Amino acid sequence: MPRFFIGGGSNIAGGVAFIGGEDAAHAKVLRIRVGDRLIVCDGAGKDHHCTVTKVTDRQVEAEVFETVPCPGEPSVHVTVLAGLPKGDRADFIVQKCTEAGASEILFFPCHRCVARLTGPSEKKVARWQRIAEEAAKQSGRGIIPRVGVLEDLAQAFNRANATDLPLFMYETGEQRKTLKDVLENAGTISSAAVITGPEGGFEPYEAQLAEVMKLHICSMGPRIFRCETAPMAALAAIMYATGNM
Amino acid sequence: MPRFFIGGGSNIAGGVAFIGGEDAAHAKVLRIRVGDRLIVCDGAGKDHHCTVTKVTDRQVEAEVFETVPCPGEPSVHVTVLAGLPKGDRADFIVQKCTEAGASEILFFPCHRCVARLTGPSEKKVARWQRIAEEAAKQSGRGIIPRVGVLEDLAQAFNRANATDLPLFMYETGEQRKTLKDVLENAGTISSAAVITGPEGGFEPYEAQLAEVMKLHICSMGPRIFRCETAPMAALAAIMYATGNM
Repeated sequence: MPRFFIGGGSNIAGGVAFIGGEDAAHAKVLRIRVGDRLIVCDGAGKDHHCTVTKVTDRQVEAEVFETVPCPGEPSVHVTVLAGLPKGDRADFIVQKCTEAGASEILFFPCHRCVARLTGPSEKKVARWQRIAEEAAKQSGRGIIPRVGVLEDLAQAFNRANATDLPLFMYETGEQRKTLKDVLENAGTISSAAVITGPEGGFEPYEAQLAEVMKLHICSMGPRIFRCETAPMAALAAIMYATGNM
Repeated sequence: MPRFFIGGGSNIAGGVAFIGGEDAAHAKVLRIRVGDRLIVCDGAGKDHHCTVTKVTDRQVEAEVFETVPCPGEPSVHVTVLAGLPKGDRADFIVQKCTEAGASEILFFPCHRCVARLTGPSEKKVARWQRIAEEAAKQSGRGIIPRVGVLEDLAQAFNRANATDLPLFMYETGEQRKTLKDVLENAGTISSAAVITGPEGGFEPYEAQLAEVMKLHICSMGPRIFRCETAPMAALAAIMYATGNM
Protein backbone atom coordinates (compact mmCIF):
# COMPACT_ATOMS: atom_id res chain seq x y z
CA MET A 1 0.00 0.00 0.00
CA PRO A 2 1.32 3.53 -0.74
CA ARG A 3 3.01 4.98 2.28
CA PHE A 4 3.65 8.60 3.19
CA PHE A 5 5.35 10.18 6.17
CA ILE A 6 4.10 13.24 8.03
CA GLY A 7 6.59 16.02 7.44
CA GLY A 8 7.53 15.13 3.87
CA GLY A 9 4.69 17.25 2.47
CA SER A 10 1.94 15.31 4.26
CA ASN A 11 -0.02 16.12 7.39
CA ILE A 12 -3.01 14.99 9.43
CA ALA A 13 -5.64 17.19 11.06
CA GLY A 14 -9.09 16.33 12.42
CA GLY A 15 -9.05 12.78 11.15
CA VAL A 16 -8.13 13.83 7.62
CA ALA A 17 -4.76 13.28 5.95
CA PHE A 18 -3.49 15.86 3.49
CA ILE A 19 -0.88 14.68 1.00
CA GLY A 20 0.85 17.73 -0.48
CA GLY A 21 4.17 18.97 -1.83
CA GLU A 22 6.53 16.29 -3.18
CA ASP A 23 4.28 13.59 -1.76
CA ALA A 24 1.40 14.85 -3.96
CA ALA A 25 3.65 14.53 -7.01
CA HIS A 26 4.47 11.01 -5.90
CA ALA A 27 0.76 10.23 -5.41
CA LYS A 28 0.17 11.39 -8.99
CA VAL A 29 2.85 9.01 -10.27
CA LEU A 30 1.15 6.21 -8.33
CA ARG A 31 -2.19 7.22 -9.97
CA ILE A 32 -3.95 7.40 -6.64
CA ARG A 33 -7.73 7.81 -7.02
CA VAL A 34 -10.76 8.44 -4.81
CA GLY A 35 -11.57 5.26 -2.88
CA ASP A 36 -7.95 3.99 -2.85
CA ARG A 37 -6.34 3.12 0.42
CA LEU A 38 -3.04 4.48 1.66
CA ILE A 39 -1.04 4.78 4.84
CA VAL A 40 0.20 7.98 6.43
CA CYS A 41 2.85 7.23 9.01
CA ASP A 42 3.57 9.68 11.81
CA GLY A 43 7.28 8.80 11.70
CA ALA A 44 7.14 7.82 15.36
CA GLY A 45 5.91 4.27 14.82
CA LYS A 46 2.18 4.85 14.18
CA ASP A 47 0.37 4.10 10.91
CA HIS A 48 -2.81 5.96 9.95
CA HIS A 49 -4.77 3.86 7.44
CA CYS A 50 -6.79 6.12 5.15
CA THR A 51 -9.29 6.07 2.29
CA VAL A 52 -8.79 8.73 -0.40
CA THR A 53 -11.73 11.16 -0.57
CA LYS A 54 -10.46 13.90 -2.89
CA VAL A 55 -7.70 14.22 -5.49
CA THR A 56 -6.62 17.56 -6.95
CA ASP A 57 -3.51 18.49 -8.89
CA ARG A 58 -1.71 19.72 -5.80
CA GLN A 59 -3.17 17.68 -2.97
CA VAL A 60 -4.73 14.37 -2.01
CA GLU A 61 -7.19 14.23 0.88
CA ALA A 62 -7.88 10.97 2.69
CA GLU A 63 -10.02 10.03 5.67
CA VAL A 64 -8.29 8.19 8.52
CA PHE A 65 -10.27 5.06 9.41
CA GLU A 66 -7.77 3.28 11.65
CA THR A 67 -4.58 4.13 13.55
CA VAL A 68 -2.31 1.22 14.49
CA PRO A 69 1.29 0.69 15.61
CA CYS A 70 3.44 0.22 12.51
CA PRO A 71 4.17 -3.51 12.19
CA GLY A 72 7.44 -2.76 10.35
CA GLU A 73 9.27 -1.46 13.41
CA PRO A 74 11.60 -3.95 15.09
CA SER A 75 11.50 -4.44 18.86
CA VAL A 76 15.16 -3.47 19.12
CA HIS A 77 16.50 0.02 18.42
CA VAL A 78 19.78 -0.41 16.53
CA THR A 79 22.22 2.42 15.88
CA VAL A 80 24.57 1.78 12.94
CA LEU A 81 27.88 3.62 13.33
CA ALA A 82 30.04 3.32 10.22
CA GLY A 83 33.50 4.66 9.38
CA LEU A 84 32.84 7.17 6.58
CA PRO A 85 33.42 5.35 3.27
CA LYS A 86 34.25 6.71 -0.17
CA GLY A 87 31.81 7.56 -2.95
CA ASP A 88 28.36 6.06 -3.05
CA ARG A 89 29.07 3.41 -0.44
CA ALA A 90 27.51 5.63 2.23
CA ASP A 91 24.32 5.83 0.11
CA PHE A 92 24.30 2.07 -0.02
CA ILE A 93 24.73 1.72 3.75
CA VAL A 94 21.87 4.15 4.38
CA GLN A 95 19.50 2.39 1.98
CA LYS A 96 20.22 -1.18 3.02
CA CYS A 97 20.37 -0.53 6.77
CA THR A 98 17.01 1.30 6.57
CA GLU A 99 15.49 -1.75 4.87
CA ALA A 100 17.01 -4.03 7.48
CA GLY A 101 15.55 -2.03 10.38
CA ALA A 102 18.22 0.39 11.67
CA SER A 103 16.91 3.24 13.83
CA GLU A 104 19.84 5.59 13.30
CA ILE A 105 22.74 5.60 10.85
CA LEU A 106 25.73 7.73 11.82
CA PHE A 107 29.05 8.08 9.99
CA PHE A 108 32.30 9.01 11.67
CA PRO A 109 35.85 9.81 10.49
CA CYS A 110 38.66 7.60 11.78
CA HIS A 111 42.30 6.75 11.10
CA ARG A 112 42.02 4.87 7.80
CA CYS A 113 39.13 6.87 6.31
CA VAL A 114 40.06 7.91 2.79
CA ALA A 115 36.83 9.84 2.36
CA ARG A 116 36.61 13.37 3.65
CA LEU A 117 33.44 15.35 4.13
CA THR A 118 34.54 18.23 1.96
CA GLY A 119 32.27 21.18 1.32
CA PRO A 120 29.00 21.64 3.10
CA SER A 121 28.29 18.32 4.78
CA GLU A 122 24.70 19.44 5.40
CA LYS A 123 24.07 18.81 1.71
CA LYS A 124 25.38 15.26 1.94
CA VAL A 125 23.45 14.54 5.12
CA ALA A 126 20.26 15.90 3.51
CA ARG A 127 20.85 13.60 0.54
CA TRP A 128 21.34 10.56 2.82
CA GLN A 129 18.21 11.55 4.75
CA ARG A 130 16.21 11.50 1.50
CA ILE A 131 17.59 8.04 0.68
CA ALA A 132 16.53 6.88 4.16
CA GLU A 133 13.04 8.32 3.65
CA GLU A 134 12.62 6.57 0.30
CA ALA A 135 13.83 3.26 1.72
CA ALA A 136 11.58 3.66 4.79
CA LYS A 137 8.56 4.14 2.53
CA GLN A 138 9.42 1.17 0.32
CA SER A 139 10.18 -1.24 3.11
CA GLY A 140 7.22 -0.33 5.34
CA ARG A 141 9.12 1.24 8.22
CA GLY A 142 7.32 3.18 10.96
CA ILE A 143 10.09 5.72 11.34
CA ILE A 144 12.61 7.35 9.05
CA PRO A 145 16.05 6.49 10.48
CA ARG A 146 17.99 9.60 11.37
CA VAL A 147 21.21 9.95 9.37
CA GLY A 148 24.08 12.05 10.61
CA VAL A 149 27.81 12.57 10.93
CA LEU A 150 29.79 12.40 14.16
CA GLU A 151 33.01 14.25 14.86
CA ASP A 152 35.21 11.27 15.69
CA LEU A 153 35.46 7.67 16.84
CA ALA A 154 35.19 8.74 20.50
CA GLN A 155 31.71 10.09 19.82
CA ALA A 156 30.83 6.81 18.15
CA PHE A 157 32.00 4.90 21.24
CA ASN A 158 29.87 7.13 23.47
CA ARG A 159 26.80 6.67 21.30
CA ALA A 160 27.34 2.92 21.28
CA ASN A 161 27.82 2.78 25.04
CA ALA A 162 24.47 4.51 25.53
CA THR A 163 22.79 1.34 24.17
CA ASP A 164 22.25 -2.06 25.82
CA LEU A 165 24.74 -3.82 23.54
CA PRO A 166 27.65 -1.86 22.01
CA LEU A 167 29.36 -3.97 19.32
CA PHE A 168 32.68 -3.17 17.65
CA MET A 169 33.21 -5.24 14.50
CA TYR A 170 36.87 -6.03 13.98
CA GLU A 171 38.31 -8.24 11.29
CA THR A 172 41.35 -9.53 13.15
CA GLY A 173 42.70 -10.20 16.65
CA GLU A 174 42.54 -12.80 19.41
CA GLN A 175 40.34 -10.77 21.74
CA ARG A 176 37.29 -11.09 19.48
CA LYS A 177 34.16 -12.97 20.41
CA THR A 178 31.76 -14.20 17.75
CA LEU A 179 28.72 -12.03 17.13
CA LYS A 180 26.64 -15.11 17.96
CA ASP A 181 28.23 -15.60 21.40
CA VAL A 182 27.76 -11.96 22.28
CA LEU A 183 24.15 -11.83 21.12
CA GLU A 184 23.18 -15.10 22.79
CA ASN A 185 24.67 -14.00 26.12
CA ALA A 186 23.10 -10.54 25.99
CA GLY A 187 19.66 -11.59 27.24
CA THR A 188 16.73 -9.37 26.28
CA ILE A 189 17.91 -6.08 24.82
CA SER A 190 15.92 -3.08 23.69
CA SER A 191 18.81 -1.35 21.95
CA ALA A 192 22.16 -2.12 20.36
CA ALA A 193 24.87 -0.40 18.34
CA VAL A 194 27.08 -1.74 15.56
CA ILE A 195 30.40 -0.03 14.83
CA THR A 196 32.08 -0.93 11.52
CA GLY A 197 35.22 0.43 9.88
CA PRO A 198 35.96 2.26 6.63
CA GLU A 199 37.58 0.67 3.52
CA GLY A 200 40.87 -0.13 5.23
CA GLY A 201 39.33 -1.30 8.50
CA PHE A 202 40.41 -0.10 11.93
CA GLU A 203 43.92 0.55 13.22
CA PRO A 204 44.93 -1.75 16.10
CA TYR A 205 44.96 1.22 18.51
CA GLU A 206 41.34 1.97 17.60
CA ALA A 207 40.36 -1.59 18.51
CA GLN A 208 42.34 -1.29 21.76
CA LEU A 209 40.48 1.91 22.54
CA ALA A 210 37.18 0.11 21.91
CA GLU A 211 38.26 -2.55 24.39
CA VAL A 212 39.21 0.05 26.99
CA MET A 213 35.80 1.65 26.44
CA LYS A 214 34.27 -1.77 27.22
CA LEU A 215 32.64 -2.38 23.85
CA HIS A 216 32.25 -5.99 22.71
CA ILE A 217 34.97 -6.71 20.14
CA CYS A 218 33.21 -8.95 17.62
CA SER A 219 34.11 -11.14 14.70
CA MET A 220 31.69 -11.64 11.83
CA GLY A 221 33.26 -14.96 10.89
CA PRO A 222 36.25 -15.81 8.74
CA ARG A 223 35.11 -13.93 5.64
CA ILE A 224 36.06 -10.29 5.18
CA PHE A 225 33.07 -8.12 4.37
CA ARG A 226 33.44 -4.95 2.33
CA CYS A 227 32.93 -1.83 4.42
CA GLU A 228 29.52 -1.21 2.85
CA THR A 229 28.33 -4.79 3.38
CA ALA A 230 29.40 -5.30 7.00
CA PRO A 231 26.80 -3.01 8.69
CA MET A 232 23.93 -4.63 6.79
CA ALA A 233 25.15 -8.18 7.51
CA ALA A 234 25.58 -7.43 11.22
CA LEU A 235 22.15 -5.80 11.33
CA ALA A 236 20.52 -8.82 9.67
CA ALA A 237 22.14 -11.08 12.27
CA ILE A 238 20.91 -8.85 15.14
CA MET A 239 17.38 -8.72 13.72
CA TYR A 240 17.43 -12.49 13.31
CA ALA A 241 18.76 -13.09 16.82
CA THR A 242 16.21 -10.79 18.45
CA GLY A 243 13.23 -12.31 16.65
CA ASN A 244 12.78 -9.42 14.24
CA MET A 245 13.43 -11.34 11.05
CA MET B 1 47.23 -11.34 2.01
CA PRO B 2 46.99 -11.35 -1.83
CA ARG B 3 44.85 -14.22 -3.00
CA PHE B 4 44.76 -15.94 -6.38
CA PHE B 5 42.64 -18.78 -7.70
CA ILE B 6 43.91 -21.64 -9.82
CA GLY B 7 42.31 -21.32 -13.21
CA GLY B 8 42.28 -17.53 -13.42
CA GLY B 9 45.78 -17.42 -14.92
CA SER B 10 47.44 -19.16 -11.97
CA ASN B 11 48.55 -22.72 -11.52
CA ILE B 12 50.55 -25.00 -9.21
CA ALA B 13 52.99 -27.73 -10.23
CA GLY B 14 55.62 -29.53 -8.17
CA GLY B 15 55.22 -27.34 -5.12
CA VAL B 16 55.63 -24.13 -7.12
CA ALA B 17 52.83 -21.66 -7.88
CA PHE B 18 52.87 -19.81 -11.19
CA ILE B 19 50.87 -16.57 -11.29
CA GLY B 20 50.32 -15.63 -14.94
CA GLY B 21 47.82 -13.97 -17.29
CA GLU B 22 45.44 -11.47 -15.72
CA ASP B 23 46.60 -12.53 -12.27
CA ALA B 24 50.16 -11.46 -13.14
CA ALA B 25 48.87 -8.02 -14.10
CA HIS B 26 47.06 -7.91 -10.78
CA ALA B 27 50.22 -8.98 -8.94
CA LYS B 28 52.02 -6.08 -10.64
CA VAL B 29 49.39 -3.61 -9.39
CA LEU B 30 49.86 -5.03 -5.90
CA ARG B 31 53.67 -4.53 -6.30
CA ILE B 32 54.41 -8.08 -5.25
CA ARG B 33 58.15 -8.69 -4.70
CA VAL B 34 60.47 -11.61 -3.98
CA GLY B 35 60.02 -12.70 -0.37
CA ASP B 36 56.37 -11.58 -0.16
CA ARG B 37 53.75 -14.05 0.90
CA LEU B 38 50.58 -14.84 -1.01
CA ILE B 39 47.87 -17.47 -1.15
CA VAL B 40 46.94 -19.54 -4.16
CA CYS B 41 43.57 -21.17 -3.63
CA ASP B 42 42.63 -24.31 -5.54
CA GLY B 43 38.99 -23.16 -5.74
CA ALA B 44 37.88 -26.34 -4.01
CA GLY B 45 38.43 -25.09 -0.47
CA LYS B 46 42.22 -25.49 -0.12
CA ASP B 47 44.68 -22.62 0.38
CA HIS B 48 48.34 -22.95 -0.69
CA HIS B 49 50.44 -20.46 1.28
CA CYS B 50 53.46 -19.40 -0.78
CA THR B 51 56.58 -17.26 -0.66
CA VAL B 52 57.44 -15.36 -3.85
CA THR B 53 60.74 -16.53 -5.38
CA LYS B 54 60.79 -14.84 -8.78
CA VAL B 55 59.01 -11.90 -10.39
CA THR B 56 59.10 -11.21 -14.13
CA ASP B 57 56.94 -8.97 -16.26
CA ARG B 58 54.63 -11.80 -17.27
CA GLN B 59 54.77 -14.18 -14.34
CA VAL B 60 55.27 -14.52 -10.60
CA GLU B 61 56.73 -17.72 -9.17
CA ALA B 62 56.19 -18.68 -5.56
CA GLU B 63 57.12 -21.67 -3.46
CA VAL B 64 54.33 -23.44 -1.58
CA PHE B 65 55.27 -23.86 2.08
CA GLU B 66 51.93 -24.91 3.54
CA THR B 67 48.58 -26.19 2.30
CA VAL B 68 45.58 -25.77 4.60
CA PRO B 69 41.77 -25.86 4.34
CA CYS B 70 40.54 -22.35 3.52
CA PRO B 71 39.15 -20.86 6.76
CA GLY B 72 36.76 -18.65 4.77
CA GLU B 73 34.49 -21.48 3.70
CA PRO B 74 31.28 -21.87 5.73
CA SER B 75 30.23 -25.29 7.02
CA VAL B 76 26.96 -25.03 5.15
CA HIS B 77 26.65 -25.04 1.36
CA VAL B 78 24.01 -22.44 0.44
CA THR B 79 22.51 -22.08 -3.03
CA VAL B 80 20.99 -18.66 -3.70
CA LEU B 81 18.19 -18.81 -6.26
CA ALA B 82 16.96 -15.36 -7.24
CA GLY B 83 14.25 -14.19 -9.62
CA LEU B 84 16.17 -12.40 -12.38
CA PRO B 85 16.15 -8.67 -11.54
CA LYS B 86 16.64 -5.64 -13.76
CA GLY B 87 19.87 -3.76 -14.45
CA ASP B 88 22.80 -4.03 -12.11
CA ARG B 89 20.83 -5.60 -9.28
CA ALA B 90 22.03 -9.02 -10.38
CA ASP B 91 25.66 -7.79 -10.12
CA PHE B 92 24.90 -6.64 -6.61
CA ILE B 93 23.37 -9.99 -5.62
CA VAL B 94 26.41 -11.86 -6.98
CA GLN B 95 28.91 -9.64 -5.17
CA LYS B 96 27.17 -9.47 -1.79
CA CYS B 97 26.15 -13.13 -1.67
CA THR B 98 29.73 -14.17 -2.49
CA GLU B 99 30.97 -12.07 0.44
CA ALA B 100 28.32 -13.56 2.70
CA GLY B 101 29.32 -17.13 1.84
CA ALA B 102 26.99 -18.44 -0.89
CA SER B 103 28.23 -21.53 -2.75
CA GLU B 104 26.14 -21.04 -5.87
CA ILE B 105 24.11 -18.14 -7.22
CA LEU B 106 21.51 -18.97 -9.84
CA PHE B 107 18.98 -16.65 -11.47
CA PHE B 108 15.66 -17.78 -12.90
CA PRO B 109 12.86 -16.12 -14.87
CA CYS B 110 9.38 -16.11 -13.29
CA HIS B 111 5.97 -14.47 -13.66
CA ARG B 112 6.74 -10.93 -12.51
CA CYS B 113 10.29 -10.70 -13.89
CA VAL B 114 10.63 -7.48 -15.85
CA ALA B 115 14.19 -8.31 -16.86
CA ARG B 116 14.77 -10.53 -19.85
CA LEU B 117 18.02 -12.22 -20.73
CA THR B 118 18.22 -10.74 -24.19
CA GLY B 119 21.14 -11.48 -26.47
CA PRO B 120 23.81 -13.97 -25.61
CA SER B 121 23.31 -14.75 -21.93
CA GLU B 122 26.74 -16.40 -21.86
CA LYS B 123 28.21 -12.91 -21.88
CA LYS B 124 26.18 -11.86 -18.86
CA VAL B 125 26.94 -15.05 -16.98
CA ALA B 126 30.67 -14.61 -17.71
CA ARG B 127 30.45 -11.07 -16.34
CA TRP B 128 28.70 -12.26 -13.15
CA GLN B 129 31.30 -15.02 -12.81
CA ARG B 130 34.07 -12.39 -12.90
CA ILE B 131 32.27 -10.38 -10.21
CA ALA B 132 32.04 -13.54 -8.09
CA GLU B 133 35.77 -14.21 -8.58
CA GLU B 134 36.71 -10.67 -7.53
CA ALA B 135 34.48 -10.84 -4.46
CA ALA B 136 35.80 -14.32 -3.56
CA LYS B 137 39.37 -12.97 -3.66
CA GLN B 138 38.55 -9.90 -1.58
CA SER B 139 36.54 -11.69 1.06
CA GLY B 140 38.90 -14.66 1.47
CA ARG B 141 36.65 -17.39 0.11
CA GLY B 142 37.99 -20.87 -0.63
CA ILE B 143 35.85 -21.33 -3.72
CA ILE B 144 34.47 -19.09 -6.43
CA PRO B 145 30.67 -19.47 -6.26
CA ARG B 146 29.26 -20.75 -9.53
CA VAL B 147 26.89 -18.26 -11.16
CA GLY B 148 24.30 -19.37 -13.68
CA VAL B 149 20.84 -19.02 -15.13
CA LEU B 150 18.04 -21.58 -14.83
CA GLU B 151 15.22 -22.04 -17.32
CA ASP B 152 12.30 -21.54 -14.96
CA LEU B 153 10.97 -21.58 -11.40
CA ALA B 154 10.43 -25.35 -11.57
CA GLN B 155 14.18 -25.83 -12.02
CA ALA B 156 14.77 -23.55 -9.03
CA PHE B 157 12.40 -25.69 -6.94
CA ASN B 158 14.25 -28.83 -7.97
CA ARG B 159 17.63 -27.32 -7.14
CA ALA B 160 16.32 -26.18 -3.77
CA ASN B 161 14.79 -29.57 -2.99
CA ALA B 162 18.17 -31.21 -3.57
CA THR B 163 19.44 -29.44 -0.42
CA ASP B 164 18.74 -30.16 3.27
CA LEU B 165 16.68 -27.01 3.74
CA PRO B 166 14.80 -25.49 0.77
CA LEU B 167 13.50 -22.01 1.71
CA PHE B 168 11.03 -19.96 -0.31
CA MET B 169 10.97 -16.32 0.82
CA TYR B 170 7.50 -14.84 0.42
CA GLU B 171 6.43 -11.40 1.54
CA THR B 172 2.79 -12.12 2.31
CA GLY B 173 0.41 -14.90 3.30
CA GLU B 174 -0.75 -16.81 6.36
CA GLN B 175 1.08 -20.02 5.55
CA ARG B 176 4.49 -18.49 6.22
CA LYS B 177 6.77 -19.53 9.04
CA THR B 178 9.49 -17.22 10.30
CA LEU B 179 12.97 -17.89 8.98
CA LYS B 180 14.02 -18.27 12.63
CA ASP B 181 11.49 -21.01 13.37
CA VAL B 182 12.45 -22.94 10.27
CA LEU B 183 16.19 -22.65 10.91
CA GLU B 184 15.92 -23.53 14.59
CA ASN B 185 13.85 -26.63 13.85
CA ALA B 186 16.08 -27.79 11.01
CA GLY B 187 18.74 -29.44 13.21
CA THR B 188 22.21 -29.77 11.74
CA ILE B 189 22.23 -29.05 8.03
CA SER B 190 25.05 -29.23 5.53
CA SER B 191 23.20 -27.47 2.73
CA ALA B 192 20.34 -25.04 2.19
CA ALA B 193 18.74 -23.04 -0.60
CA VAL B 194 17.15 -19.59 -0.54
CA ILE B 195 14.63 -18.67 -3.22
CA THR B 196 13.78 -14.97 -3.53
CA GLY B 197 11.59 -13.12 -6.02
CA PRO B 198 12.20 -10.40 -8.63
CA GLU B 199 11.19 -6.72 -8.24
CA GLY B 200 7.45 -7.39 -8.03
CA GLY B 201 7.74 -10.46 -5.82
CA PHE B 202 6.05 -13.78 -6.52
CA GLU B 203 2.53 -14.40 -7.84
CA PRO B 204 0.30 -16.26 -5.35
CA TYR B 205 0.23 -19.32 -7.64
CA GLU B 206 4.03 -19.46 -7.54
CA ALA B 207 3.95 -19.55 -3.73
CA GLN B 208 1.25 -22.24 -3.89
CA LEU B 209 3.45 -24.25 -6.21
CA ALA B 210 6.34 -23.88 -3.74
CA GLU B 211 4.05 -25.23 -1.02
CA VAL B 212 3.02 -28.19 -3.17
CA MET B 213 6.70 -28.83 -3.85
CA LYS B 214 7.19 -28.96 -0.05
CA LEU B 215 9.52 -25.97 0.27
CA HIS B 216 9.43 -24.01 3.51
CA ILE B 217 7.45 -20.81 2.89
CA CYS B 218 9.30 -18.22 4.96
CA SER B 219 8.80 -14.70 6.15
CA MET B 220 11.75 -12.39 6.68
CA GLY B 221 9.83 -10.27 9.16
CA PRO B 222 7.43 -7.38 8.67
CA ARG B 223 9.77 -5.25 6.58
CA ILE B 224 9.79 -5.60 2.80
CA PHE B 225 13.30 -6.07 1.43
CA ARG B 226 14.20 -4.96 -2.08
CA CYS B 227 14.75 -7.87 -4.42
CA GLU B 228 18.52 -7.30 -4.39
CA THR B 229 18.71 -7.07 -0.59
CA ALA B 230 16.60 -10.10 0.34
CA PRO B 231 19.06 -12.86 -0.72
CA MET B 232 21.92 -11.28 1.20
CA ALA B 233 19.81 -10.70 4.34
CA ALA B 234 18.53 -14.29 4.30
CA LEU B 235 22.06 -15.58 3.73
CA ALA B 236 23.40 -13.55 6.67
CA ALA B 237 20.68 -15.01 8.89
CA ILE B 238 21.52 -18.57 7.75
CA MET B 239 25.25 -18.03 8.32
CA TYR B 240 24.51 -16.61 11.75
CA ALA B 241 22.14 -19.44 12.68
CA THR B 242 24.58 -22.15 11.56
CA GLY B 243 27.54 -20.69 13.44
CA ASN B 244 29.26 -19.31 10.35
CA MET B 245 29.11 -15.66 11.32
